Amino acid sequence: MNAFTGTSVESYKQRYINRGRLLISCPDQQGIVASVSKFLYDHGANIIESNQYSTNPSGGTFFIRIEFEMEELAERKATLEKEFRPIASVFNMEWKFTRVSELKRTAVFVSKELHCLLELLWEWQSGELMCDLALVISNHEEARSVVESFGIPFYYLPASKDIREEVEKKQLAMLQKEEIDVIILARYMQILTPNFVRAHPYQIINIHHSFLPAFVGAKPYHRAYERGVKLIGATSHYVTDDLDEGPIIEQDIERVDHRNQAEDLKKIGRSIERRVLNNAVKWHLEDRVIVHENRTIVFN
Amino acid sequence: MNAFTGTSVESYKQRYINRGRLLISCPDQQGIVASVSKFLYDHGANIIESNQYSTNPSGGTFFIRIEFEMEELAERKATLEKEFRPIASVFNMEWKFTRVSELKRTAVFVSKELHCLLELLWEWQSGELMCDLALVISNHEEARSVVESFGIPFYYLPASKDIREEVEKKQLAMLQKEEIDVIILARYMQILTPNFVRAHPYQIINIHHSFLPAFVGAKPYHRAYERGVKLIGATSHYVTDDLDEGPIIEQDIERVDHRNQAEDLKKIGRSIERRVLNNAVKWHLEDRVIVHENRTIVFN
Amino acid sequence: MNAFTGTSVESYKQRYINRGRLLISCPDQQGIVASVSKFLYDHGANIIESNQYSTNPSGGTFFIRIEFEMEELAERKATLEKEFRPIASVFNMEWKFTRVSELKRTAVFVSKELHCLLELLWEWQSGELMCDLALVISNHEEARSVVESFGIPFYYLPASKDIREEVEKKQLAMLQKEEIDVIILARYMQILTPNFVRAHPYQIINIHHSFLPAFVGAKPYHRAYERGVKLIGATSHYVTDDLDEGPIIEQDIERVDHRNQAEDLKKIGRSIERRVLNNAVKWHLEDRVIVHENRTIVFN
Amino acid sequence: MNAFTGTSVESYKQRYINRGRLLISCPDQQGIVASVSKFLYDHGANIIESNQYSTNPSGGTFFIRIEFEMEELAERKATLEKEFRPIASVFNMEWKFTRVSELKRTAVFVSKELHCLLELLWEWQSGELMCDLALVISNHEEARSVVESFGIPFYYLPASKDIREEVEKKQLAMLQKEEIDVIILARYMQILTPNFVRAHPYQIINIHHSFLPAFVGAKPYHRAYERGVKLIGATSHYVTDDLDEGPIIEQDIERVDHRNQAEDLKKIGRSIERRVLNNAVKWHLEDRVIVHENRTIVFN
Repeated sequence: MNAFTGTSVESYKQRYINRGRLLISCPDQQGIVASVSKFLYDHGANIIESNQYSTNPSGGTFFIRIEFEMEELAERKATLEKEFRPIASVFNMEWKFTRVSELKRTAVFVSKELHCLLELLWEWQSGELMCDLALVISNHEEARSVVESFGIPFYYLPASKDIREEVEKKQLAMLQKEEIDVIILARYMQILTPNFVRAHPYQIINIHHSFLPAFVGAKPYHRAYERGVKLIGATSHYVTDDLDEGPIIEQDIERVDHRNQAEDLKKIGRSIERRVLNNAVKWHLEDRVIVHENRTIVFN
Repeated sequence: MNAFTGTSVESYKQRYINRGRLLISCPDQQGIVASVSKFLYDHGANIIESNQYSTNPSGGTFFIRIEFEMEELAERKATLEKEFRPIASVFNMEWKFTRVSELKRTAVFVSKELHCLLELLWEWQSGELMCDLALVISNHEEARSVVESFGIPFYYLPASKDIREEVEKKQLAMLQKEEIDVIILARYMQILTPNFVRAHPYQIINIHHSFLPAFVGAKPYHRAYERGVKLIGATSHYVTDDLDEGPIIEQDIERVDHRNQAEDLKKIGRSIERRVLNNAVKWHLEDRVIVHENRTIVFN
Repeated sequence: MNAFTGTSVESYKQRYINRGRLLISCPDQQGIVASVSKFLYDHGANIIESNQYSTNPSGGTFFIRIEFEMEELAERKATLEKEFRPIASVFNMEWKFTRVSELKRTAVFVSKELHCLLELLWEWQSGELMCDLALVISNHEEARSVVESFGIPFYYLPASKDIREEVEKKQLAMLQKEEIDVIILARYMQILTPNFVRAHPYQIINIHHSFLPAFVGAKPYHRAYERGVKLIGATSHYVTDDLDEGPIIEQDIERVDHRNQAEDLKKIGRSIERRVLNNAVKWHLEDRVIVHENRTIVFN
Repeated sequence: MNAFTGTSVESYKQRYINRGRLLISCPDQQGIVASVSKFLYDHGANIIESNQYSTNPSGGTFFIRIEFEMEELAERKATLEKEFRPIASVFNMEWKFTRVSELKRTAVFVSKELHCLLELLWEWQSGELMCDLALVISNHEEARSVVESFGIPFYYLPASKDIREEVEKKQLAMLQKEEIDVIILARYMQILTPNFVRAHPYQIINIHHSFLPAFVGAKPYHRAYERGVKLIGATSHYVTDDLDEGPIIEQDIERVDHRNQAEDLKKIGRSIERRVLNNAVKWHLEDRVIVHENRTIVFN
């Protein structure tokens, strides 16, 4: 028995059994909110939270995220979707309904440094990060015992530049078999091929250990030390084909000073990385993050 | 001639001539958003920004703030209000339409310390704080030259405990004559009587030099020093009859350490007070602050 | 075997085998630094870090903390102390030499909420919090499995108002037997008697879940919600006989807004509590905190 | 007459008439502090504040800044310097004594945006930035009236790429004639030639409107918007021949989100720029900043 495992996932799913989310993006024009809110009202939905944003009310793109309660949501979802299609068509919408209790299937990739993984595990077990934490994959054995102590399957898959494609093939097969929706790179330290990235568009969340776009690439803390910055930071972003150039979800910083050597920056950085990745993952799991022109809209 | 005076107020009013705001609070129930958004759509309004909040979607209070563009808003406002009344009645709404270009008539009360006043003046002249800055009242002469250099009328009205009621009578008369909507206490350092406060409900904004509810009352920086806190702060709140107990609009803090004497805390505190008051005033002027059960909802 | 346990404690002790600290407080007067630095120089000490502070250079109290390297420190420490006594006498000093590799014997008291304990355990195993983590005492069983998974003895001692003195007797006996120097109340949620506190002057570190002196006492997050604050915080302080009035070591805050219910404040507060307590403990373990007139001097 | 001008400069000089500072850097070795503190003690100096730092206690570079009180400092300074030379020679020191009441002669360069200049003027008049504010130079007329209202000479010198050398010649002549020690580029927006920079090594302080090294070069706010960062910042640094690559003195940031357009970032950035430049200038004026290998040691 483990102190961590509990009933938080099940009680969460039960509590939010009738909670749904509607996400829409479309060309901005008059009447969108009127139509959507009438639709929800006609179907007996009770709006819990609503956020909207327009890049430009005259001819830009409009985004809305609505969280609502509806009786027998699971049973009625298909009908709801079918009946929403005409409205979506009129306004040329991209849209999706999701059910909060259908947790996202999540995989964590990790290497030797465990601080980000540990933060995710703790927040997960305490009910803050709601997802089906399906598996952890690592190119090292360091994380095994802690991951397994949470009752989560751990897979050791050696990785390196030379065997990248072969390893990714195995990884992709595992992700597909496990029906993974979200991949969290919790300091995985391996570059992914375009092929891998393309298979999971805006579903791979990375933590970079600098306030991007400063210190793109390797060894950011050493370079931060060399440059003599007075702040260090971390950035969580979606992975795209351009290394460290994907849409930024969250960033934060801490103050440092002349007494901090590169090693100190690494230590201080750990706590920034932990909370930045944790926030980004949380918002993604709650469908709060929308990508638009390589930037994110975060309805938090 | 003064470097500050310019055309920012006039150009702002022109730019936002057709910009309106609708603020509503009512018991939460289904159909509110559907009805309101249909109304705005039917009247040709283009929604620019919309924020909503419910204290409890099952039977709580619902709040919404909508900013919109509408052709010939000035001419059509009376009709708009008349036609909205039936909807308001159905949902038991408290509501108001405002026009952005009808700037709020604003008075600043100040004493000897000018840092908050100066911040407001600069932000006002640079176009960040949009209001009709009608007058400054002080119980000292220190502020006169700088206020008048901005082209704003300055009134010297001595004040003290002993002559409080008499002075407030004069002040109230001036405020009424000038049709003042907002009173900013920019370190005024005088207590207002319930009579004065009642005449301007949730229209008087104060800056208190501590992170309330810590250090309610006088000499907060000295008491912060005595207590050995590691953070000092400031709080901007609406003035009510309970001293320092009104609804909080904004707070912020700065780090301090053992080397800072009480005098240092005062100096560090000035920059916190400046930005906290400035934010609170800005949000109030933009109708972003709603008071509910002695707390504020801030749609920023 | 556990992923966490490692050789970090032993390698740390080895690395700092010749590292010492000298802490002094005395009436300020000319010549203190000259005498102390001459003494260290004459004994072949290499100063690594030095911090000093005077409450008032004319007649106040002077504090200095010097970290130094000295060959064969363990063997020479007694001689060093003997030879320092004449200088200490001249300047009327309170002082102590400590060896960095003599880790402080530490006990953690915890109740049902484990976030602060987990943070301490993690920082301890990663080598950030250097101490002999001798035991964990709790009035609940929740923490047992995680504590024991780190190889640390866990003791369950039920506690409540009614049996307070009897329980404290057992606790004090255990602390004495284990030669404990530092007691960390990691959300212990029980009040200690003056008798207990007196036995460990400025050796008990508590985390209070508000930015003191705001919300002294029970249920600070609920009261913060009621008051409508825009910041919540946490405070780590030494425990004294006056509840929540002991010298503050560290404080920090996070922003909240009208959407956060009392439950949300509790969750957000957890991460503040974790880092605030962690910082306070770290500084205490490194002899960086000095208490003076119920305030702390923190040489960090 | 102006509300700002006052006696703060004169009263400051009087108050600190006997306050001196000693700044030293030298190869680290044992005995430095012992020798220096003995020297000051023998000359009757009362140490007020002392900060030291070593890049590496075994063979690195040692830095110390001591602030002290000494009777008749002005009269005795030359003797003090003469008698310190032998010690300086033994330890191979670079060093200087300064008198706090000998204020640094300061020039501000500004262009059209006045927010940084205004902050400096305000902090100067309130006694926070102690310097002889000798003149303001601008390539535009915008700042004239406000500068002159503080009683400070204002010089309009048109500048552009084409006439750079010719203009700098005039500027350098003015700076030399006025015996300027510190040049503050308060959003001057013109690149300086190596010739100009070389004439004032580590005496020119710039404010860059990004958290360097992110967004080196022009239009940082627009590029920050394009990149979709969640934080914007500002950096104050000494000007060197490498554009935006000089030693960083201070940095700070503010949070932004998807709703902020490039124009909003500029506005939010102004308040960051104001406080970052202000801090950097203050520390420089107080001799708290030391440059070492293109990084700064800031004894604050």
